Amino acid sequence: MLTSNSLSQFLDELASSSPAPGGGSVAALAGAIGSALTSMVCNLTIGKKKYAGVQDEIQSVLAQSEKLRRDLTEMIDQDTEAFNSVMAAFGMPKNTEEEQLQRTSAIQEATQRATLVPLNVMELCERALILAKVVAEKGNKNSVSDAGVAALMLQAACAGAGLNVRINLVALKDEVFVGGTIERMKVISGRVEELAAETLALVNSAIG
Amino acid sequence: MLTSNSLSQFLDELASSSPAPGGGSVAALAGAIGSALTSMVCNLTIGKKKYAGVQDEIQSVLAQSEKLRRDLTEMIDQDTEAFNSVMAAFGMPKNTEEEQLQRTSAIQEATQRATLVPLNVMELCERALILAKVVAEKGNKNSVSDAGVAALMLQAACAGAGLNVRINLVALKDEVFVGGTIERMKVISGRVEELAAETLALVNSAIG
Repeated sequence: MLTSNSLSQFLDELASSSPAPGGGSVAALAGAIGSALTSMVCNLTIGKKKYAGVQDEIQSVLAQSEKLRRDLTEMIDQDTEAFNSVMAAFGMPKNTEEEQLQRTSAIQEATQRATLVPLNVMELCERALILAKVVAEKGNKNSVSDAGVAALMLQAACAGAGLNVRINLVALKDEVFVGGTIERMKVISGRVEELAAETLALVNSAIG
Repeated sequence: MLTSNSLSQFLDELASSSPAPGGGSVAALAGAIGSALTSMVCNLTIGKKKYAGVQDEIQSVLAQSEKLRRDLTEMIDQDTEAFNSVMAAFGMPKNTEEEQLQRTSAIQEATQRATLVPLNVMELCERALILAKVVAEKGNKNSVSDAGVAALMLQAACAGAGLNVRINLVALKDEVFVGGTIERMKVISGRVEELAAETLALVNSAIG
């Protein structure tokens, strides 16, 4: 598992001539980092008298952001696995007509999966950004820049996952799937850009 | 060192109620990740016949992006150390007038350092983005989305480091230092936003 690698090892793996892990796993990691920062701001708010009025809400945000952190962390490996499946399908034999048909179908199936993983990352980032906005507004003011970095990481994660959805969609022949995915992606991207801008506006006004 | 932690441990540390590591270290890590992705695209371009015309340029980009990756990786720990020094200064005794003066001066000095670390991260990210743009334009087209994710991570890293500069500047009394830092920050942010937009335009037109 990539997540049991040290940060240094992960960075070395990333920089290497192996195409995986690549941008897809990085997008998931950036999402997990953004969720972890949101959790940190929750943990620095919980139990503080000054924030007595928001304890229940922040406890609920923490539970949700920890769940999203776990899910996004799992996507780091899932994206690399999905990419490797596409490569494996491309490596299938293509000597007979039957082999060619099987190979084409395996490539389509694996590529569809390689599209769904980053699409899922986008959805998780959208939910994580809703939480980052709450902590930017109501969390410990000493950590407001951390809430801002959380929003920036989630925004970059969502946009990066979007690039990975799009580069895989190019190879897909199922027009209904392609059209539906593009539509879904547009909706999420729009909401994420809006949430990120709102969160950063809150952070900027708090820093002054 | 934070970089010898596993990804999972680092995420746990980040989410915990300890304020460090926080957004500053995350910004440095995002910069290191962006540089690593640029290096990956270089490594997937080097030795490929199709890219024979750009081999020397990409070799030079790789050497620079690996240097920036090392420098940005070091900043992950440096930011946490700078934050801990500020906390240590706040913890100094303040019983006598002399102690109070020493404490105030130590806080100012440590906070200035906590400003310079993320300012340095911003500068390194600007240089790293110049390289991400080169690989988006001239690197292996199969990895163009990775060049895009590199740009997104470097853009988020720079903006995140900027929030950390600003939150520390608020506490500083040296107006010449504050004014000069804000000026420097504006110049870097402007260039980084421009470079990121140009890189993503190249990536979007390559994906089609």
